[in-house]
Order: sequence, then C-alpha cells, then structure tokens
Amino acid sequence: MTLDAVLARIDETLPDSLDRLMALLRIPSISTDPAFKPDCARAADWLVQDLESIGFSARAAATPGHPMVVAHGGEGARHILFYGHYDVQPVDPLELWTRDPFDPAIEDGPKGKIIRARGASDDKGQLMTFLEACRAWTHVHGSLPGKLTIFLEGEEESGSPSLIPFLKENQGELACDLALICDTGLFDGAVPAITTMLRGLTKAEFTIRAASRDLHSGMYGGLARNPLHVMSAILAGLHDGTGRVQVPGFYDDVDELPDTLRQQWQALAFDHAGYLGDVGLSVPAGEADRTPLEMIWSRPTAEVNGMWGGYTGAGFKTVLPGEAHAKVSFRLVSRQDPAKVQAAFRAWVAAQIPADCEVIWHDGIEGAPASVMSIADPAFEAARQALTEEWGRPAAFVGAGGSIPVAGYFKSILGMDAMLIGFGRDDDQIHSPNEKYDLDSFHHGIRSWARILARIA
Amino acid sequence: MTLDAVLARIDETLPDSLDRLMALLRIPSISTDPAFKPDCARAADWLVQDLESIGFSARAAATPGHPMVVAHGGEGARHILFYGHYDVQPVDPLELWTRDPFDPAIEDGPKGKIIRARGASDDKGQLMTFLEACRAWTHVHGSLPGKLTIFLEGEEESGSPSLIPFLKENQGELACDLALICDTGLFDGAVPAITTMLRGLTKAEFTIRAASRDLHSGMYGGLARNPLHVMSAILAGLHDGTGRVQVPGFYDDVDELPDTLRQQWQALAFDHAGYLGDVGLSVPAGEADRTPLEMIWSRPTAEVNGMWGGYTGAGFKTVLPGEAHAKVSFRLVSRQDPAKVQAAFRAWVAAQIPADCEVIWHDGIEGAPASVMSIADPAFEAARQALTEEWGRPAAFVGAGGSIPVAGYFKSILGMDAMLIGFGRDDDQIHSPNEKYDLDSFHHGIRSWARILARIA
Repeated sequence: MTLDAVLARIDETLPDSLDRLMALLRIPSISTDPAFKPDCARAADWLVQDLESIGFSARAAATPGHPMVVAHGGEGARHILFYGHYDVQPVDPLELWTRDPFDPAIEDGPKGKIIRARGASDDKGQLMTFLEACRAWTHVHGSLPGKLTIFLEGEEESGSPSLIPFLKENQGELACDLALICDTGLFDGAVPAITTMLRGLTKAEFTIRAASRDLHSGMYGGLARNPLHVMSAILAGLHDGTGRVQVPGFYDDVDELPDTLRQQWQALAFDHAGYLGDVGLSVPAGEADRTPLEMIWSRPTAEVNGMWGGYTGAGFKTVLPGEAHAKVSFRLVSRQDPAKVQAAFRAWVAAQIPADCEVIWHDGIEGAPASVMSIADPAFEAARQALTEEWGRPAAFVGAGGSIPVAGYFKSILGMDAMLIGFGRDDDQIHSPNEKYDLDSFHHGIRSWARILARIA
Repeated sequence: MTLDAVLARIDETLPDSLDRLMALLRIPSISTDPAFKPDCARAADWLVQDLESIGFSARAAATPGHPMVVAHGGEGARHILFYGHYDVQPVDPLELWTRDPFDPAIEDGPKGKIIRARGASDDKGQLMTFLEACRAWTHVHGSLPGKLTIFLEGEEESGSPSLIPFLKENQGELACDLALICDTGLFDGAVPAITTMLRGLTKAEFTIRAASRDLHSGMYGGLARNPLHVMSAILAGLHDGTGRVQVPGFYDDVDELPDTLRQQWQALAFDHAGYLGDVGLSVPAGEADRTPLEMIWSRPTAEVNGMWGGYTGAGFKTVLPGEAHAKVSFRLVSRQDPAKVQAAFRAWVAAQIPADCEVIWHDGIEGAPASVMSIADPAFEAARQALTEEWGRPAAFVGAGGSIPVAGYFKSILGMDAMLIGFGRDDDQIHSPNEKYDLDSFHHGIRSWARILARIA
C-alpha cells in the first residue's frame, strides 16, 4: 500500500522533520508585541521557503499587521484548505522558564520525549505535522496528496486583526470545499478527537479614572474616591454566589446541550479531578449546577484576565491612584453575539460608575461567536476512522473551551465547514512558561494527517 | 516690653537672617542620594557653627547615615526640644525648575515676595525661623530664651533610618518636657495652626494564590478558581455602601471628636470643594455621615494603594492567572493599635479565602499609631494665643491626615508630647520642582517663635 510507504517515510525522516521544526521555533514570532514584528516576518518567509521546497507555490501576503502565508498545490476532486498559525504568545514571566523559550530542545519528560519551546505546541509544532505529512507524501508519490491550499496566519495570538479583511479580499482564492484546522488537542491526552463545537470570545479593556493625578493617602485618604475600590466592586459583582454571570441578558442566546452530545460527553468519563489537580486545584469553581465538561465546552464565562492600578513595585507607596485598569474576556457559546455581549457589559459597568469617576473603553476590542460544525459531511466520519486507526482507540467528536475564531470566519466568509484536529495535550502549558509538545504528538500527528489525506483528498 | 525689643530686632535684621538662610539653601543636602553625602555633612557643620554663634553648645553627631545636629543652651524651668530637618528632597525633574534649585533667590510671587529654592519651605526655611528667633532674643537679652535643646535630623526625606536608634541611644540627653516641631503649615494658607492630632499608619501586602500556574481561559475558564475574582471580592468588601470599613472591630478604639475640637474645625470653614477641585474631584467619597475635615484628620481609613494580577501589558492575554496581589494601608486614629488592626484584617481576609486558594502575607509591614497630643498642657493654649497675636486671627488646633513619625517617636521613646507649628503654605510645592517659601512665612515665623518662647520657656 502506498499509504504504508508514506508512513514509513515519515518514520525514517523524523529527525529531519524535527530539525525543521526547531528552526521555526527559534524565531520569536510574538505577534502582540511590536518589538517582534521583524521576527514575525522572518517566520512567514521561512514557511514560504519550506512550502516551496515541498512543491507548493507559496507567498507571504502583506497585511497591515503580520503577513499571511498562502500556498497552493496538488490536484484532486475536493479542494481542501489547511489552517495553522505561526505566531506565538508572549513569554513573561521569563524567570519561570527552565530554558530560553526560543532555544528549543528535546528533553526527557515523565511520559516520554518532549519538544520544549514557546510555540512548540501552539501552534508551530502542530502546523508542521501537516507540512511534514505533505512532504513525505510528495516524496513517495511525486505529487501532493490532493488539491490543497495552505493558509498560515501570523496574528492568531493577538486577536487576528487582519484576518477578516484578508478573507474577504481573497475570498475567491481561499474558499475551498472543506477546511482542516490544526490547533486543538487529544482528549484527555490520549483520545484522538475532532472538535465540532468551539466557544467564541469577546474582550474588553477599560480604565476607571477618578482624580486628575495620584493623591497622597494622608492628605486625601478617606475623602477622595479611590478608583481601585470602584474597580474591585465592579469585578466582584461579575458573578453571583453560584457562579452565574450578572450582566443582564447574558444567557439569552445560550442553548442547552443536545441529549446526544450530552451522552457522548458523559461516556468520555472526564477526569475533572485530574484535570484540576494538574494545575494545583481540586474543586470546580464555576456554575454550581453544571458538569465540568459543560463548563468548559458549552457554557459561557466572564473572566478577569488582568487588573492593575496604584503602586505595584517593591516596598510601599501610600498613594490613592488616579486610575484603575482591567481586562475582562467572555467565552461565548451557542448564538451569543459578541457585539450584544459587549454592549450589555458596557452598560452594566457604566451604571456602576459613581460621581467623580469616568470609564474609558480601550480600542481593539474584537469578538467572535461560537462555532458549531455540521458533522453531516462524510469527511468527518472518514477522518474519525483514520484517527481511530492511527491511535488505536475510538476517536470522538468533542467540544473546545477555547476560541478558534477562524473556524467561524471560514463558515461565515468562505462558506466552508472546518474539521478541527490536533494532537496537543492538556499539560502542554500553552500560553504559560515551559510550553512543550510531546514528540509522540508530533510523530503521530504527521502520520494522522497522511491517513486522513489518503481518505478525504 | 522686652518682647517688643526682640520683635523689633527681628524686623531690623531680616536681611541678615535671609542671608544666612540663603547660605544654608546653597548646600545641596539631598539625603536619599549617596552622591550628596558630603553636602549633608557640610549642612550639618554649617548649622553647628551657626548654633554656636548664637550661644549654643553644638555638635554634629555621626550616625550610620547622615549626622544629627544636637545643641544645648540656656536656662529655664522647662526643658524644651526643637526639631527640624536639614536634608531635602531630590530635585528631578530638573528641567521643570525655573532656576537652579540650589541657587536661591528672592522673587516676586503673585501674593508677595517668595524665597525660591529646594528646601526653602521643607525644611530649611522653617527650621531657621526658630534659630533666628533665638538669635534675636539672645542679642536683646544676653541669653537664650529658655532651656533649649536643638535636634536637627539629616535623613527625614529618606525614611529616617537612624532616628529610632539615635533617640534610644541618646534618650537621657534628648528627653525634655515638651517638643516643638517645625515641619507643618498654616491652615488654608492663612490660619496659624498647631497640629495636635496626626493619623497613624499600618500597611499590608498580600498575595492570593490559586492554580500552580497561569491557565488558558479557554481550557479552564468557567471551571477553575480565578484569584483576581477572589481578590476583587475581598477588596470590594472592605467598605459598605456608606463608606464604613467592614473589618470586625476596626472602630473599637476610635474616639469621637471632642465637641470643642469639632467646633474649632467647623469654624475653619474648610473649602472641601476647592480642595477636591484641585485634583479634579468634586464629591466627598468617604463615610457618608462625616464632614470632610473629620474624614482626613480624625477618621481611620482602609485604602487599596495598589493591586495587580494577570496580564497587564499591551494587547490581550486570555489568561487565568495563578496569583493576585494587593497593597492595602490603614490610616489610624485615636487608640487604634497597628498590630491589632493588622491581625483583624488578616483574619477577615483569611475567612474569605475559598477552596483551592491560599493567602500569603508579605514581610516588611510597619505600623505607627496615631499621635494625639495632650492639649491639657497649658503650653498649647499659650502657643495658640501667641500665634493669634502674631497673625491677627484666631489660631486653631488642627489635625493632619498624614503621619509625621518623629512626633510619635518623641512620645514613645522620649515620653514627651510635641507641638507641631509651622508656616508652610499649600502652594509651597514641597517635594516638587520650584519649591518656595513665602518671605511672609519666614518673617512672621521668626516673630511667632519669639512670642511663643516668651510665653512658654
């Protein structure tokens, strides 16, 4: 069988595949920090070169932010688009890393070899699984496994500001029959999974301003409005005692989970104690009347991601600050509309601003609704079987707590559904210090794509 | 009358008094910056020489930091100590000064002549008012106005690290019947004032820790405990809707203001609208049932001086942080005990820490109780009458919202009360560029001390 030859080629050339991934990981492509703009461009150029070496016709397309990598190649009945992102999260706090985040290395982990670096799992390691599968296929067959478009973004970790305009401007070039997105993980670190339900996201950053300057707490303490108190009260009021979000109308467009999915999810026997235990916790802290899987896959949230104000350095400064700041994000589900949630939140905050204070909303607010895929397309079941073969256990349709807004845009702008398949593990520490990707994820990930492409492309 | 002769001498020799102040102002005695250590020593030596020229026996006493100037002289029934400080604040940002901060000059201000220099008001101009009064007195009478000890510190602007050990080691030499401290101002720039009540202070810094690392809000949002929510709830609960602090027992040792003081303070007709208006505010925000002067002089506070946690940089990071931090300080009044307030606060916080969270208290907590002078000593009323005569309007006993720790140490270590009398004005720009001292403050300050000494020494 030719698939066997491709799989053998993947196994033989794994060291070369790793060398290429290491080269990409060395580029500090942090998209949210302007200081790393040249590095983002460098990562895009590296990918263009690599895609051309596989036989794609590739380019780095300029945007107002970081470039998009677009490549085309191959022939086939079905036109398939593959999506990944080459940008990474910031690395702070740097002192918690056991090594330079941009000096990748293979280390021995408790469960086998791991690739340690920022972006190893999210998403450079994952996107390279697809490119390496294409490379091995082309080597064995002399041509790509199907009619493919590769689309790699450089702004996924910074809100994808250029994504919507780029998809709209390049609709003809990018609209395919089906999308493959590699930015998710195995369920419970072992069960191969196709994500069919993703939470959306909307973010708000605001400042509460009181006095025109910082005040001495001896001269003004007890008399002047302290914006840190105002901010604390607002953030404290986001939830009631049962974990329910208090912004009016927040749950209006939230659907209950269909019984079939509820049963599938129950069958997964999610080890929430282990999931929480991995990060030093033991007790579910969200809505009192929901199961842990529901909370992270199918329930909306309001979370404070950052807050700050006043003196935060070493020692003490008895200051009443003029300003307090917060970043708050909402995970969205079902039919929740980001704009509607934003508006409701702003109105709710505004109603709590006392005399002498004003609230300033910061620009750059983005939002994406939840994505719920139609699994009627036979490609979904074909991919599930391919994954079951590679991993030796039944693959599952699952939900995802994180947003992958691009899946929603592929549907709304390009009219195609997406299959989200990835090989990350819960302990990959993505967005945190000491991010890693299991060598096993990388290796079986490459092999998984070869099997999937053999069935659907 | 001999007092008249002293006052006349003060008026006649004002130019000479100014020349001496100018000489002292030319010495850049910035105590916090080691580069100016020789200048601090030079200022101390200059004062020793000047005190000896008046008839004191003076010395610059070495400390691990800058020297203390100690002088003794005169005879009298009551031993009185005078305190001031010869060190000054740094001058940056230098570009905002209209002249070299250490090249003093008499300038025409909008309300009369001013002395412009770093330290003109805080505290060289103020301490020289007392020395010049002694000099004129000695010239007229042939001897000092009473049994006096002069104690001039050189580290007041850098946290007074040597003060407590020095007071303890020289207790016998420095313990007097009463202290005079010249480091405060006129009320509202016009009303002569004796500060008899200063708030104390205690500070707490703590961390609330939940997960062992920062979490991705997509993977854990809605399920895992967010310490920013816990911190917000605690800080929001510090006060009730009427501004009352909610820590149990917080008001146990808080006395109501005596009616006599309440009436005096009401007579001051404090312009709280102007005071708040200066910093862009308009409405008192503290305890609903207290007057603005009460709030800043005689009521205890709980203020958040800093809080932080999660992602606070540019852009957004949808993280659930592992930790949240806050710095909270309490202004204390009456008989409130810093240690008791600390313990009550810690217990109150601990009771609110939910499952999976812990609270970590940081070291370096200091505390000082409020200073409440016993105005039963007739010297207080005598000084009030002297000030009333000199300034042509009724002098007042006032409070101070900030701490002047030396007054507390004089009480706790040396067992003496202090009268805080000064002639600074709210627009003196102490600690800021373009510091000044009104010539009127200097001239009437000298005359005020002559009158006070005539009555109490």
